[in-house]
Amino acid sequence: MMLSSYAQGHWYTARDEGTPLLHAVTGEEVARISSAGLDVAGMLDYARRVGGPGLRALTFHQRAAMLKALAQSLSGPERKAEFHALSAATGATPADSALDIEGGISTLFVYSSKGRRELPNDTVCLDGPPELLSRKGTFAGQHLYVPLHGVAVLIDAFNFPVWGMLEKLAPALLAGMPVIVKPASQTAYLTELVFRRMVESGLLPDGAAQLICGGVGDLLEHLTGQDAVSFTGSAATAQKLRGHPVVLRNSVRFNAEADSLNCSVLGPDAKPGSDEFDLYVREVVREMTVKAGQKCTAIRRALVPSEYAGAVVEALREALGKVRVGDPAESGVTMGALASLGQRDEVRRAVERLSGAAELLQGTLDPGSFEVEGADPERGAFLPPILLLGGDPDRDEVHTVEAFGPVSTVLPYQSVGHAAALAARGEGSLVGSVFSFDDSFVRQLVLEAAAHHGRLLLVNRESAAESTGHGSPLPHLVHGGPGRAGGGEELGGIRGVLHYMQRTALQGSPTTLTAVTGRWIPGAARLQDPAGVHPFRKHLEDLRIGETLRTGTRTVTLEDIERFAASTGDRFYAHMDNEAAARNPFFDGRVAHGYLIVALAAGLFVDPDEGPVLANYGLENLRFTKPVYPGDTLRVTFTCKEKNPREAEPYGEVRWDTEVSNQDGEVVARYDVLTLVAKRPAP
Amino acid sequence: MMLSSYAQGHWYTARDEGTPLLHAVTGEEVARISSAGLDVAGMLDYARRVGGPGLRALTFHQRAAMLKALAQSLSGPERKAEFHALSAATGATPADSALDIEGGISTLFVYSSKGRRELPNDTVCLDGPPELLSRKGTFAGQHLYVPLHGVAVLIDAFNFPVWGMLEKLAPALLAGMPVIVKPASQTAYLTELVFRRMVESGLLPDGAAQLICGGVGDLLEHLTGQDAVSFTGSAATAQKLRGHPVVLRNSVRFNAEADSLNCSVLGPDAKPGSDEFDLYVREVVREMTVKAGQKCTAIRRALVPSEYAGAVVEALREALGKVRVGDPAESGVTMGALASLGQRDEVRRAVERLSGAAELLQGTLDPGSFEVEGADPERGAFLPPILLLGGDPDRDEVHTVEAFGPVSTVLPYQSVGHAAALAARGEGSLVGSVFSFDDSFVRQLVLEAAAHHGRLLLVNRESAAESTGHGSPLPHLVHGGPGRAGGGEELGGIRGVLHYMQRTALQGSPTTLTAVTGRWIPGAARLQDPAGVHPFRKHLEDLRIGETLRTGTRTVTLEDIERFAASTGDRFYAHMDNEAAARNPFFDGRVAHGYLIVALAAGLFVDPDEGPVLANYGLENLRFTKPVYPGDTLRVTFTCKEKNPREAEPYGEVRWDTEVSNQDGEVVARYDVLTLVAKRPAP
Repeated sequence: MMLSSYAQGHWYTARDEGTPLLHAVTGEEVARISSAGLDVAGMLDYARRVGGPGLRALTFHQRAAMLKALAQSLSGPERKAEFHALSAATGATPADSALDIEGGISTLFVYSSKGRRELPNDTVCLDGPPELLSRKGTFAGQHLYVPLHGVAVLIDAFNFPVWGMLEKLAPALLAGMPVIVKPASQTAYLTELVFRRMVESGLLPDGAAQLICGGVGDLLEHLTGQDAVSFTGSAATAQKLRGHPVVLRNSVRFNAEADSLNCSVLGPDAKPGSDEFDLYVREVVREMTVKAGQKCTAIRRALVPSEYAGAVVEALREALGKVRVGDPAESGVTMGALASLGQRDEVRRAVERLSGAAELLQGTLDPGSFEVEGADPERGAFLPPILLLGGDPDRDEVHTVEAFGPVSTVLPYQSVGHAAALAARGEGSLVGSVFSFDDSFVRQLVLEAAAHHGRLLLVNRESAAESTGHGSPLPHLVHGGPGRAGGGEELGGIRGVLHYMQRTALQGSPTTLTAVTGRWIPGAARLQDPAGVHPFRKHLEDLRIGETLRTGTRTVTLEDIERFAASTGDRFYAHMDNEAAARNPFFDGRVAHGYLIVALAAGLFVDPDEGPVLANYGLENLRFTKPVYPGDTLRVTFTCKEKNPREAEPYGEVRWDTEVSNQDGEVVARYDVLTLVAKRPAP
Repeated sequence: MMLSSYAQGHWYTARDEGTPLLHAVTGEEVARISSAGLDVAGMLDYARRVGGPGLRALTFHQRAAMLKALAQSLSGPERKAEFHALSAATGATPADSALDIEGGISTLFVYSSKGRRELPNDTVCLDGPPELLSRKGTFAGQHLYVPLHGVAVLIDAFNFPVWGMLEKLAPALLAGMPVIVKPASQTAYLTELVFRRMVESGLLPDGAAQLICGGVGDLLEHLTGQDAVSFTGSAATAQKLRGHPVVLRNSVRFNAEADSLNCSVLGPDAKPGSDEFDLYVREVVREMTVKAGQKCTAIRRALVPSEYAGAVVEALREALGKVRVGDPAESGVTMGALASLGQRDEVRRAVERLSGAAELLQGTLDPGSFEVEGADPERGAFLPPILLLGGDPDRDEVHTVEAFGPVSTVLPYQSVGHAAALAARGEGSLVGSVFSFDDSFVRQLVLEAAAHHGRLLLVNRESAAESTGHGSPLPHLVHGGPGRAGGGEELGGIRGVLHYMQRTALQGSPTTLTAVTGRWIPGAARLQDPAGVHPFRKHLEDLRIGETLRTGTRTVTLEDIERFAASTGDRFYAHMDNEAAARNPFFDGRVAHGYLIVALAAGLFVDPDEGPVLANYGLENLRFTKPVYPGDTLRVTFTCKEKNPREAEPYGEVRWDTEVSNQDGEVVARYDVLTLVAKRPAP
């Protein structure tokens, strides 16, 4: 079976012999791969011409709904069954496959949910508050994010053929950028199957996603400054791609996530017998054996207090002794094969280099000398778990040689400073972890080690049961790390979406900025309803951004303050005791309660009758900017600032700029009132 | 005079002959430059070993205070006078010099102010809210920013010897990262003078800033993943540095800001005679002549509606005819020299290439044929303003050949789509501008063009008087652009600081995350005062993060609601009309006012007596999460979430997590109360 590519709306199958892809366990051919004859320049052009405009016409919420529908279509029992069945060919155990398949689908769900909750139902989004750039207020700034007008080229590693594609595709599509997926050859058959199901779902707009099975040809030659490459794989390949003359010349956005020599640190408080000691041993073993250790986030360096090194080693050896290697289809097997014989040989070579600097404690490189259950150890890519001890933890090799398989090295440390220094010797890691119930040790280590890590997992007896583990990136948190880890960043919720967008600083009059962004900015024109209709009487569609209500006035009396204090119980001295209030650095005497000011403001701006305004669900950025004294007269200027219609509800959010001023026109309080407002009823 | 470098706490002067740097107007030697024998690896080491730890020990507010003091020390009249005097050697007019010198110093002031207002008085800062990662709440995430542990290498261009240094130095030092400044040779004498004054001020911690006058030697060979390079200059040099094997291999953070072919668009509404037409002509002329057009942000392409092209050309020629080129020391001279004869020759070559695709309308390449006032046209680097007309605006050259001098090309466009397409032909620009009083045209153009620009200036009659102009980056807004502009980003307020920091995702129990970050996270341990002292009775230093008050209860009655409505005037139907409220999709009947809930909450948590709590200055992120009905009983859980002592005031901000729940333990409202709390009185 020759794998196909999906290009310009059609499946394309190369006519040459291709390269065989072998079953990791049996060594039998699973598929062949080739992209010979594929028009990659045409794919880029199609994505730019068809895919981009189609995606950019959708709002973030519409794209989020598409991701959710995609996730649902991939989640059916038949779908999952076929994905899992094919995943077995990669050498994965059922648990390994779930990490990849269910993990990938859940990333789609999380991005869908975050897109709806954290982005507006619009095609662009704002970044930060407006910047006031002038004295008179006629000139201001606002940062805006828009999708890049190019193509996101998503280059995935062999170890997560499903998750690797989906964790990149979800944020790019949510951003509004079409993608070209390029899986690593070894396991591309699984990526191709999942991609095929996505295409069949009919949920992807034309040109939004294309697939290259096989080499990318001269694709990089055609990239521009509007394109983005998101790469996961080896540091050597990352370096080569990032150094491509076209990538350099056109400042192509390039994000790399490369394997790193991640460490896990056992705290000095975590004595043998403690919860954290046991949790640590379990985690190191898990990271060595899940995916046969083929995770860029796996623990390669186990940093332990030197006085517990012996106990750690003993506990690890005991646990590793129970690992059963073989065909994951066999019951009782707990660790499968590596993805290919080539991978196995690379790991062997790395372990040979490591063993020059560290003692090989457990495991072997000799294929004949360990048990493989239910499979031929010569044809499958098997290795046993391999544990080393770096008696001299300051040797270079243990911090620089990565064995991308079931391999870890125990390194004893002397002090928290030594542990942090050893962690930094990895020269940049995707993730580190700390197992300790002493938060002051954890804080000290984190503040030293954070600069070298993209993620730090902090485990103790309280968090362990719900911890997602050292090796699992989450869509909510950034994934990537400095230096050896590639210097990139993916995921992290909406942060990962912004990698596919351009941040542009806009400068102009507040009125113009409001017209461009759709969000009212202080200083912009305030619109009056010509007929004087109160804004609370208008449905969502009928409210105009900038529409403003200027209310009547209300004078605050000492009696109001007394009554408010009596009825709420808030008798804070600044409201009740004239002399004490005057001693306060901010007041000249008794002042009105802040909560009284906002309550009276509502009394001024609210239109009481039943109507389209459904609820006031919150309030943001309230600042009391001047004291209100008895006798002061308040007035509210209430402006429709932003509307966010919900896709699937008969209402939307409306944000109102609320400015409360006194008789001298000075602003005494400013905040955003958040309401739900009904759409027009269906005719 | 040989320029010196400042390395490892000492001034270093090379002993070789160096390279002469010539006065741009007179051609006489101003200084010589060489870094022969400079130990650049030692400088990196010194910055990492001495500068970094020293800076990281300071809080953001302390670093901000240092920037302000630096700015003040450079602002004295004597200082400014000597800077301006030397700046004249670069060919700058007094106005040009002010852009560079005053512009640079004001960037220090803005960063100082933003550091104090927008960053905490702490050594690290948080990014975004906590992420809840588990059902039971024992496992959460929080992103944290810490300074990189390396060196920021700041490579500046020749055209802004002061601003160029300071706009990079301010955010890096504020981030807590030591810098090595490397000015372009041509004008390094001015950078060296300002740097010398900064060193003399004694305000910079040891190792925080070093200077290389001359070549950088093998500096790049020694960079690591903890270092950052921030480069401004030509695209070719950016490409070379970014492609350096060590930069690629170690994922050195690299930010480039390169010259681009920026455009300015005249709107179709801006007919000859309109305000915007006149503003446009003035801006194009200004951008051609300020700094003799040697600005990476200058307008190279003037996009005008084809029907006004003739009028625009005529107006530009008239205005350009009044420009007086010469020695800026001569009264009446409005445009000075280019920075060097080499620069002049490069511009001439570029104009020759351009004139193959566009008609040369005004100006000349012949040095004998234009007037130079008060200087020798053969020895000074003079050029007249040069205007071209690209009758065929779709030719490649006009969008790709940059003449880095007083040169612009007028390009007629047919439609808004055509204008956007021509803008994009620049393949990425630092800045674009639009002159139009038609906001719908502006919006349409911005949404198409934003992806290709780092900044877009939108000018009309309302904003023009206060506009800072097409060519001026502001510290508040990002500076940089995609593609040809280098794909980087500087400034943008605190955004520019974060370039020098590592974002790390922390995962762990809320209690551990609180201990590490110093900010209380929901779900973390709540501390009780052992003696039951109310938190309002404690000074800033005595409050502990997590310290919690659980209040008594208060039952809300229908009478409370009636009374609140009567006293505030807020008679919204959901509070007053049981049937109307029940028709609302969110309520079962009359509900308490949200403002009543927060007022009653204050009645529960406030301790009334005079004490360390000075004021409630605001409230954030209020959400009403469940309706409160008459008969419901409220209780408040009030937790000290974050403390932010001010450096120079006897108080600080305290943020309180405020959770209002009902008799069933359900949260009905959640928000942060913001207060000012006094420090302990001095003994």
